[in-house]
Order: sequence, then structure tokens, then C-alpha cells
Amino acid sequence: MGNVKVINLSKSVFDDLDREAEILRGYLKSKGVFLVNVMSSPGAGKTTTLIALINRLLKHFRIGVMEADIDSDVDAVKVADKANCKSIQLHTGGMCHLDAAMTKQGLDELGIDDLDLVFLENVGNLVCPAEFDTGASMDMTILSVPEGDDKPLKYPLIYRKCDLVLINKIDAMPYFTFDMDRCVANIKLRNNNSTVIPISAKTGENLDEVVNYFIKIISSGGKNYNA
Amino acid sequence: MGNVKVINLSKSVFDDLDREAEILRGYLKSKGVFLVNVMSSPGAGKTTTLIALINRLLKHFRIGVMEADIDSDVDAVKVADKANCKSIQLHTGGMCHLDAAMTKQGLDELGIDDLDLVFLENVGNLVCPAEFDTGASMDMTILSVPEGDDKPLKYPLIYRKCDLVLINKIDAMPYFTFDMDRCVANIKLRNNNSTVIPISAKTGENLDEVVNYFIKIISSGGKNYNA
Repeated sequence: MGNVKVINLSKSVFDDLDREAEILRGYLKSKGVFLVNVMSSPGAGKTTTLIALINRLLKHFRIGVMEADIDSDVDAVKVADKANCKSIQLHTGGMCHLDAAMTKQGLDELGIDDLDLVFLENVGNLVCPAEFDTGASMDMTILSVPEGDDKPLKYPLIYRKCDLVLINKIDAMPYFTFDMDRCVANIKLRNNNSTVIPISAKTGENLDEVVNYFIKIISSGGKNYNA
Repeated sequence: MGNVKVINLSKSVFDDLDREAEILRGYLKSKGVFLVNVMSSPGAGKTTTLIALINRLLKHFRIGVMEADIDSDVDAVKVADKANCKSIQLHTGGMCHLDAAMTKQGLDELGIDDLDLVFLENVGNLVCPAEFDTGASMDMTILSVPEGDDKPLKYPLIYRKCDLVLINKIDAMPYFTFDMDRCVANIKLRNNNSTVIPISAKTGENLDEVVNYFIKIISSGGKNYNA
């Protein structure tokens, strides 16, 4: 435990980050690697969800994980402990998000020649990460029940951008005032094409549905898939 | 309901925002107004906590609230409904934080001549708001139990900066893996002088302690107070 590779990312110097994102997407495609950008509030359960998903997806894909954070290696250590896949920690040097050039630095350090699927756990933040294209094959976000069903009203961009929204911690629903129908309606208000799957990373509820989503989207070649 | 004043903030044009923050602090002091900058993750319970606190603090102070958000007027509507005090909604125009110049615009729209205490509910974000001095008399943050006890390790700056940390949703402790002692130790690691109060905004547990904190800090003139 505690023995993970930590990469300190350099600030990007590119003028046109959107172009860098497109270049990265092309590079990933040429390598046959599907990159998922995972965003959420702090504490929504990104790491726990990824560990549970990866352990189910390892039968189907060769997987790597990049854990981005301002500081600490808490998440990468957890992943290294509990998921049997390659993982590294990226330090953003105080930056509140990742862009495509920073993501590329991470991928080069991770090494993707022997991988099919890479998860990038972005910095826990609903605002800034939504504004930057990381070059990922797809974007997903996790909303957790204790945060409340109104989050898509307050953070519109991230819900507009994401193809997949997991509603996590549904095992805690009895203890919170959370209206699932209203939450799904709020998400659909931002992006009517998004796929919404309520899950519990803790109990495993509905994780098989997420696994099937990834199998389908990856085998169909990416973004065109809609469940 | 739904009838709240919404202010669209303009982007700040000042070169030296730290100086603007100091000017604002002096202005607030001259007006006898104590401004509290409230930060947290999305969904940690800023609005619910503020409503519960304000209803208890109104016996002691004349209070105003500024609810900052990227979009929506969800929070200001809630405050207007449930707390008997002046409140306005500030839209940041996509910005992930408030600075002192934006805060001053809000205060001018709120009107502070008849107030003693103003709460600024910052954008839900643990990263960027910590980097900007709003000119507030003090900074506080709310960490909620479902987010986990490791957050001060992952978002160091906000915990370093805050004088007061409320640990909210302690009524949900039985349903989550959350070590209170470890959480307090992680907070103290960042700022050994911060005051940490576990609360439940839902049940009201320990809110009297927070009320007493504000009475003491405001009567003692601000930042020098340590509980």
C-alpha cells in the first residue's frame, strides 16, 4: 500500500486546447484505447465506483486508471489496493481541472500499448472540468443521492456534456430527501440523450447495467451509442 | 415563491484583486457589517445549514444572504421561503468562484446599511473559491459526512484557509463509513487553529454551538477569535 507512481503534471502551453483534444482522440483511436473522463463533486463516489466497475470489467478489457488530484495519493492507493489494474496518480499542481495536454502527459506515463480501456478520474469539481475537453472518448459524471436532486439545475454544463450519468449511493435513499424522478427529469432537461443509471457502488446494485453499457459503447466504436 | 432578485455579475477588471479584498474588508468594518464566505462541495448542505443558522441568529443580528451560483435561483428561492431575511441570487456567468469585486457588486445590490451580518454562499466547489479572497470578514467551509473523512487530504487549500469547519449530516453517520476522529485530525493537519463543529442542519444538532461561535466572533471584532 502507498506504493503508487505519482506524476506532477506541467501546465499546458498550447494555444488551441480544443485542437489538442481532437489530436488526442485520434491518437487514442489509432491505439485502440477507449478513454473515459469521470467527473463529479468531491465525495460522490468516483473512486469507489471505479473500483467496483473495474473489477467487473476486467473480464472484458485490459484496463488502466489515472487518478487526478490537487494533492495526496489517496485515490491511487485505494485503486492499487482494490482493483487489479495499472494505476497512477496525477497531481495537477493546484489546477482545478485537466485539459487534453495534461491528459496526454498522464497517458504517456501510464503507458497504453497494452490497454483497451482507460479511466481518467478528474478533479472533484462540477464546474471547471466541464469546461475543458480532455480528449476522452466519452464523458461521464456521478451524482450521489446525498447531494440532492437539484444539482443538474445548478451545474448545467457538466450535465449537458455527459453521455452517461450514474446516480450513486441509492442504498442511502431512505435517509435523504431525494426524488429520483425529479432528478432524472433535471438531468434530461440538460441533455435528453444522456443515459442515466441509478447505482450503488457499495452494494453493487445495477453495476451490471453499467458494465453492459461500456461493453456496448466500446464495441460500437464510441460516441454514437445511445442506450 | 420564485420571486427573488437575480443579479448577473460582471467579470472583474481589477489588476490587483488582493488589494480590492482589503479595501472591501475595510469598507465592511466601517459599515459595521460582518461578512461570512461560505464554501463547500456541491450538495454538502450550505443552503440548508444557512437557513437553520439564520433562523437562530435573527434574534441577535440583522442578516442578509447572497446566494452565488452559475445558474438557477434554487437556493435564493429556498432562503426567501424559509428564512425571514433579505436574500438575493448572484449569477457568476459561468465563473467557478467569486472574487472581492464580484462580492462588492453583490453587496451593493443587496444593500447593507440596515444589516449586521451577511452570508455569502459561494459556488459549490472546493478548489477555485479557496484561491480567491472575497474580502469577507471570515471564511468557513462545510464538509458533509457522505463525502468522506479524507477530503481535507485532497483539497488542502480550502481547509488551510477556513477559520470554521462544520461537519454536516452527522445524523447520517450510521449509514456511511466515516471516522469522525480521523476527519478532525485531517482538518487540523491543514489548519491547527480552525474550529471544527459537527452538526446536523436537518435535526438541529449542535447548531447552538455554531450560533455561539458567531455571537462571540462578531462581538470580539472578527478574525482574532479562536474557540
